[in-house]
Amino acid sequence: MPRDQYDDCWLRYDRVSEDQRASYRRRLKHAYVAEESPECTAVRDELREAIPGLLDEDVHLWQHRPETVDGFLAIGTPGDMEVIAESIPDGAVDDLDDDGYLIRSVEYEGQDCLVVTSGADQGLVYGTFHLLRLLNMGEAIDEIDVREEPAYANRVINHWDCPFRRTVERGYAGESIFDFDRLPDLRDRYEDYARLLASLGINGVVLNNVNTEYYPRGSTNEASQEFDGWRLLETRRLEDLTSLASVFRRYGIQIYLSVNFGAPKRIGDLDTFDPLDEDVRQWWREKADEIYDLIPDFGGFLVKADSEGQDGPYNYDRDHVEGANALAQALEPHGGRVWWRAFVYGSHEDRAIQAYDTFEPLDGDFAENVTVQVKNGPIDFQPREPVSTLFGAMPETDLGLELQITGEYTGQGVHATSHLPMWKEILEFDTHADRQESRVQDFFRGDGEGVVGVTSIGEDRTWTGHYLMQSNLYAFGRLIWDPDLDAETITDEWITQTFGADEEVIDTVREILLDSWEACIDYETGGLGLIHMMHNGQEYLENHYLPSPGEWPGYHGATEDGIGYDRTSSGSGYAQQFREPVAERFEDVETCPEKYLLFFHHLPWDHKLEDGTTVIQRLYDNFYDGVEEAERLRDLWMSLEGKIDDRRFEHVATRFDEQVHQAEKWRDVITGYFYDFAEIEDEQGRVS
Amino acid sequence: MPRDQYDDCWLRYDRVSEDQRASYRRRLKHAYVAEESPECTAVRDELREAIPGLLDEDVHLWQHRPETVDGFLAIGTPGDMEVIAESIPDGAVDDLDDDGYLIRSVEYEGQDCLVVTSGADQGLVYGTFHLLRLLNMGEAIDEIDVREEPAYANRVINHWDCPFRRTVERGYAGESIFDFDRLPDLRDRYEDYARLLASLGINGVVLNNVNTEYYPRGSTNEASQEFDGWRLLETRRLEDLTSLASVFRRYGIQIYLSVNFGAPKRIGDLDTFDPLDEDVRQWWREKADEIYDLIPDFGGFLVKADSEGQDGPYNYDRDHVEGANALAQALEPHGGRVWWRAFVYGSHEDRAIQAYDTFEPLDGDFAENVTVQVKNGPIDFQPREPVSTLFGAMPETDLGLELQITGEYTGQGVHATSHLPMWKEILEFDTHADRQESRVQDFFRGDGEGVVGVTSIGEDRTWTGHYLMQSNLYAFGRLIWDPDLDAETITDEWITQTFGADEEVIDTVREILLDSWEACIDYETGGLGLIHMMHNGQEYLENHYLPSPGEWPGYHGATEDGIGYDRTSSGSGYAQQFREPVAERFEDVETCPEKYLLFFHHLPWDHKLEDGTTVIQRLYDNFYDGVEEAERLRDLWMSLEGKIDDRRFEHVATRFDEQVHQAEKWRDVITGYFYDFAEIEDEQGRVS
Repeated sequence: MPRDQYDDCWLRYDRVSEDQRASYRRRLKHAYVAEESPECTAVRDELREAIPGLLDEDVHLWQHRPETVDGFLAIGTPGDMEVIAESIPDGAVDDLDDDGYLIRSVEYEGQDCLVVTSGADQGLVYGTFHLLRLLNMGEAIDEIDVREEPAYANRVINHWDCPFRRTVERGYAGESIFDFDRLPDLRDRYEDYARLLASLGINGVVLNNVNTEYYPRGSTNEASQEFDGWRLLETRRLEDLTSLASVFRRYGIQIYLSVNFGAPKRIGDLDTFDPLDEDVRQWWREKADEIYDLIPDFGGFLVKADSEGQDGPYNYDRDHVEGANALAQALEPHGGRVWWRAFVYGSHEDRAIQAYDTFEPLDGDFAENVTVQVKNGPIDFQPREPVSTLFGAMPETDLGLELQITGEYTGQGVHATSHLPMWKEILEFDTHADRQESRVQDFFRGDGEGVVGVTSIGEDRTWTGHYLMQSNLYAFGRLIWDPDLDAETITDEWITQTFGADEEVIDTVREILLDSWEACIDYETGGLGLIHMMHNGQEYLENHYLPSPGEWPGYHGATEDGIGYDRTSSGSGYAQQFREPVAERFEDVETCPEKYLLFFHHLPWDHKLEDGTTVIQRLYDNFYDGVEEAERLRDLWMSLEGKIDDRRFEHVATRFDEQVHQAEKWRDVITGYFYDFAEIEDEQGRVS
Repeated sequence: MPRDQYDDCWLRYDRVSEDQRASYRRRLKHAYVAEESPECTAVRDELREAIPGLLDEDVHLWQHRPETVDGFLAIGTPGDMEVIAESIPDGAVDDLDDDGYLIRSVEYEGQDCLVVTSGADQGLVYGTFHLLRLLNMGEAIDEIDVREEPAYANRVINHWDCPFRRTVERGYAGESIFDFDRLPDLRDRYEDYARLLASLGINGVVLNNVNTEYYPRGSTNEASQEFDGWRLLETRRLEDLTSLASVFRRYGIQIYLSVNFGAPKRIGDLDTFDPLDEDVRQWWREKADEIYDLIPDFGGFLVKADSEGQDGPYNYDRDHVEGANALAQALEPHGGRVWWRAFVYGSHEDRAIQAYDTFEPLDGDFAENVTVQVKNGPIDFQPREPVSTLFGAMPETDLGLELQITGEYTGQGVHATSHLPMWKEILEFDTHADRQESRVQDFFRGDGEGVVGVTSIGEDRTWTGHYLMQSNLYAFGRLIWDPDLDAETITDEWITQTFGADEEVIDTVREILLDSWEACIDYETGGLGLIHMMHNGQEYLENHYLPSPGEWPGYHGATEDGIGYDRTSSGSGYAQQFREPVAERFEDVETCPEKYLLFFHHLPWDHKLEDGTTVIQRLYDNFYDGVEEAERLRDLWMSLEGKIDDRRFEHVATRFDEQVHQAEKWRDVITGYFYDFAEIEDEQGRVS
C-alpha cells in the first residue's frame, strides 16, 4: 500500500526478528502456489507483498515444485499438487467447510515444507492470511498444525455509504472510499480494503447505505441529491459494479446491495411496488436475472423497509413476510439471499418492544432465502443494552446478528472505545431459549445465517478516523470467525501486528483497549443501563456525539421522583419478552444486574442498591469514575511516547485529550441534569 | 499531484518558512470540516494534500469540533456547525452569492480559529482555495478578514478539444487531456485539472470544440474521422460523460457541450434540423431530458452555427434567434442555457462589421436562457484589436465575453506572451454605451452572463506548453473573479505560488510577463493596429504562427500608396458602430490612438505621426524595438539561472532563444514586405 496515502493497518509485514529469520527463510523464501482461480491470484499477490517485507529479501514464486531447495511453502488444494495430496492424510481436507483450511509443517522428500491447504480456493486465501498473521507476530512455524473453520457461514460488512455523494452515515473517517461515479474505474484502495477484510475472513460486503434514499443537505448542489443509493439498481450502475465485484471476488468476498423497496416504481416503469402484484414480482425477477448475469456470485439484497421513512410493504398493507418474500422469490433461482432488517419502531411507546412484537409472530413464514437481520439490542447500538429478545425466538427463521463497528454512540472516532468487550458480553449472554446451547453466540450458525458489522471505514489516512479504532474492525472479523477467542488474544494479535512485539507496548495498549468500553459507559450513561441521552438534532456533525439528556427525556425517564424506564410487566413489558429465568431476573429489581437496572426499572433517586448506595449516588460515582478512567487511559497512552512512531502517537494523543475533555462534559451535563431533578447532593460535593 | 507526470502549477504547497510555521500550525493543524456533499469531499481532499505539504506534518481532520486544541480551521456553512454560526454575525453569510465566501480569524471559546464559510458548498471550495493561496504565499492569517464574491455569475472555460482524435484546435500543449474513448474511466489528471480551475473560481467547462465537425487530416486513419464532437450527444457517449461530470461536480464546476446544430439529423432519425420544425424541437427536448436525467447539473450547449462551415439556422433560411431559441426551449425546463456564438463573417467585405450587423438587430428576441457569446474584438483574437462594438449594444440580451487564453496569435506556446495586460486593456475600455458604468468589464454582470476563456490546456507536463504560460490560465481565472485586481497583483500571486517568495525572482518574472505583450505586438504587427499578417495555410502545424503578410493582403491593406484598413465612415464604417465620443475618436486620424491607427485608417506610408515620424518609419522602429525587447526579456530570464529549478529554467530558456529567433523572422519578413511597397529607406538602414 502507498503508505503516504493511507495506513496499512495490521498488514505491515515488517521485518521479523533475527532469531526467526532463518527458520522463516527455510520455509518461505520459495513458494509453490496453485493457480487457475482469482483467489490464487490474491494469494500470490499477498506473498509478493508480504515475504519480502518479512524476510527483507525477494520471494521466489514457483509454478513447479522446486526440488533443489531446502524447503518451501506450498499453497493449494490437494487436487492442485502432489506434495499436498501426499502430505495431508486422506479426508482431512474433505471434512472442512469451504472456508476452512489447514496449515501444517511437513517433510516431503527431504524438504521442509509448509502446507496451506483447503478444499476450496477461498480457504486458501484465509489460510494464507492466517499464516501471514503468525509470521507478523513472530510465531514459530517449524512444527505448526492449524485447523480452522469459521463459526458463521456469513460474515458480512455493512457499509452505510451514500453513493455518489460519497458520504458515510455514522462514519467518522472522512468520505466514502467507494467512488461510484468513477466505476467501473478501480482504485487501489479497493484492493487493499479487500485484503484487510479477507485477512479477517470477512466474506460479504454490502456496498451502500440501508437508507437508499438519504436526506439532503440544504447547501449542496441539487444535482448530487438526484443520485442516491436506490439508483444502483439501474442497469448502467449494475454494469459499473462488475469491476468492483471482481476485486472482492479475488478475496472470496461477495458483494450485496441495499435496495429500496420502491425500486419497481422508481427504476422500473411500474406504478406500484406492491409485493403481491405479479408485475412487481416479475420486475424483481428480471432485475435479479440481470444482476446475476453481470455478477454471478452476487450475494443478495439488504433491505430497510418501513423504517425511518424508507418505503416498505406497509405502503400496501402487506407485512414483512410478504415484502421480504417478494424479493426472495426473485433471488432464489440464483442462490441469492434477502437480508431483511428488523429495525422497526414508532408504533409502540417503548420502541424496545416493537421488533419482537412485529417479527416473532412471523416466524416460519419467511422464505428459505430470507435472513432477518437483528441489531444486538432492542434500541439502537447504545453503549450498553440488554440483547434483543428476538434471539432464540424465531427458530424457524434464519437470523443475522447486526453489530456496529463504527462508534456512533461511543465517541465517534474521537474516543478510543473498543467494542470487543461489548461484543463478548453480547455473544456470551445466555438467552435460555429452547436450544441445547442458548448463548447468543450459539445462534446464527445456519447456512443462511451469520453476523454483520456496520463499518466506519472512510477515506482518511487512518481508515477508521482513529488509529486505535482499527482494532474494532480487526476484532469484529476475528471474533465472528471464532467467537470463542478471548478478548485478550484478539487484542494482542492486533497490537503486535500493528505496533510490533514490544511487551510494554502490548501490555499498555491492551489495557487501554480492554478498559475503554466500561469507561465510556460510565461517563456517558452512569453505568446503570440508561440510554439515549445524546444530542439528537438535525445537525448531523454533532448528532449522537454530544450529551443532551433534556432532548428525549422519555428514554431515560428522569423525573422528580426517580429515574429509569419501567420495562417490567407493570411497565412496557419488554422484560417479559425474554425467556425464564432471564425474564424474572430482569423483572425483579433485586436480581436485575446493576448494569441493566435503569433500562428495566424506574426507581426513586434514593433507592438503595445492594451495597447501600443510592441510585443517584451510584450514578454520580460512575460518571466521575468514568472520567478518571479516561484520564488514566490517556496517561497510559502518553507513557508510550518514543516507543511507537510519532505520527500515530501524536494522532492518538491528541484524540485522547479531546476524549477526556468530552467525557468531562458528558459527566457534568448529565449529573447536573439529574441533580436538578433529584435535588440530592453528591456525597463528595462534586455535583451542583 | 504526481510531479513526475505533470506539473502542479500554482498548487505546490511547499513547506512554508519558519517564521510563519508556528502561526499556521496553530490554526491549521486541526481542521473541522463539514460533510454530506461532494464539494465538502473536495475540501477535505485538498486539505489532506495541502496542509502536510505546507506544515511538514500531518493534518488532523475532525468531524467534531476539537475543544482541547489551541486552534483549528473550521470549514462549513453556518448551518453545519455552531462555531461558525456563532462567530459570524447574523446575515453576513445570507448576504453572499452562492459562490461567495468569508474567511475570518475568530476566537471561539478561547480557541484561535480560522473560519471559512459560505451559504453554499461551492463557496466553501472557493474559500478553501483562497485560504490555501494565502498560505502558499506566506501571508499572515492571524487577523484575516476576507469577504469575496465573483464579479460574473458564469466563469467558463471553452475547450477546443476534438473528442476521440484527442487533438486541440489552437492548442499548443500536446493532445487533449480528455480521453473520451476511455470514459467512463477517469484519469487522475481530470481531478487535478478540476482543482486548478476551482482554485481560480471557474464554474463551467465546455468539454469540446465549437467546431463539432472538424476538418480531417489527410493521412489519418479514416475510422478516427468517424468520431467527432457532434457524436457526444449520442446516448452512450452521454452516459460516459456522467463520470467526468461527477469529477467536476465535486469542485463546483458544471459541464457543457458544444453541439452541432444539425444533430437532429445526424444523431436522430429526422431528415431535417429546421429549428421551426416541431419534430426537431421535440427531438431537442427529448435529448435535453435524456442529458439532464444523466447529468442533473448539466450547464447547457455552446453553439457555433453558420460559421466556418458549421451547420446553422441559415440552412433553412432561419435566423440566429430562431436557431438559438429552438435549443433554448429544450433546455429551459432544466435550467440549462444556450451559449450562442456571435463569431460570424463572410458576407461583408470587412468582417469586423458583421457580428454587430447580424446580432444587434436581434436584441430582445433571444429567449431568456440564451447568452450571445462575443469575442473581445471584431476580428479574431489578434495580438491587439479594438473591442467588439456589440458590447453595450444589446441591452435586452444576455452577453458573454469570449477571451482567448491560448496564444493562437501570440506565439503559440513558444513565445512567452502574457495576455493579462491585453485583458486589462479590454476590460478597462470605456464603450460609453448607455449605462451608468460602461467599461467593458461593467457588462456581463447578469445571472445569465459571464466571461469565457478558450483554453490551451494539453497533456504536456507543463499543461500549457510553456511553464510561464500557466500564468495566462491563472490570470484569466483571477481576473474574471475580480476584474478590479491589477495586473501586478495577479502576476505576483502567480509567481510567488509558482516559483516561491524570492524578491528577485518575483521582480524579474513580473517584468518579463508584463512587458511581453507589447513586445509581441511590436515584432508581429508593428504596433499601429495592423492585423492578420500571419501564415494562413492549410498546414495546421504552422498555421497562424509564421509571418506571411502576402497571403491575405486585404487585412492590412499594404499598397504602393499606403498601409492600413479604412474602417471610418468613408470606408467600411466599423468605427461608426461605436458610441460617441468613441466613434469620433476612432474616425478622426488625429485623435485615433496610435495603437489602433492602421486598424481604422489607410494612410500614406509617409503620413506624419504626432511626433513627426512617418508611419513607415514608426513601423520599422516598432518591429526593431519589439525584437530588442524580446532579447531583453530573454536576458532577464537568463539572470534567474540557479534561482529557480533547472527543469523549468531550462525549458523556458530554450523557448526564449526560439522566440527571439522567430521575432527576428517576423520583423525581417514584414518590414521587407512593406519596404517593397513603400520603397522608403529605414532611417537607420536596417531594412532592405
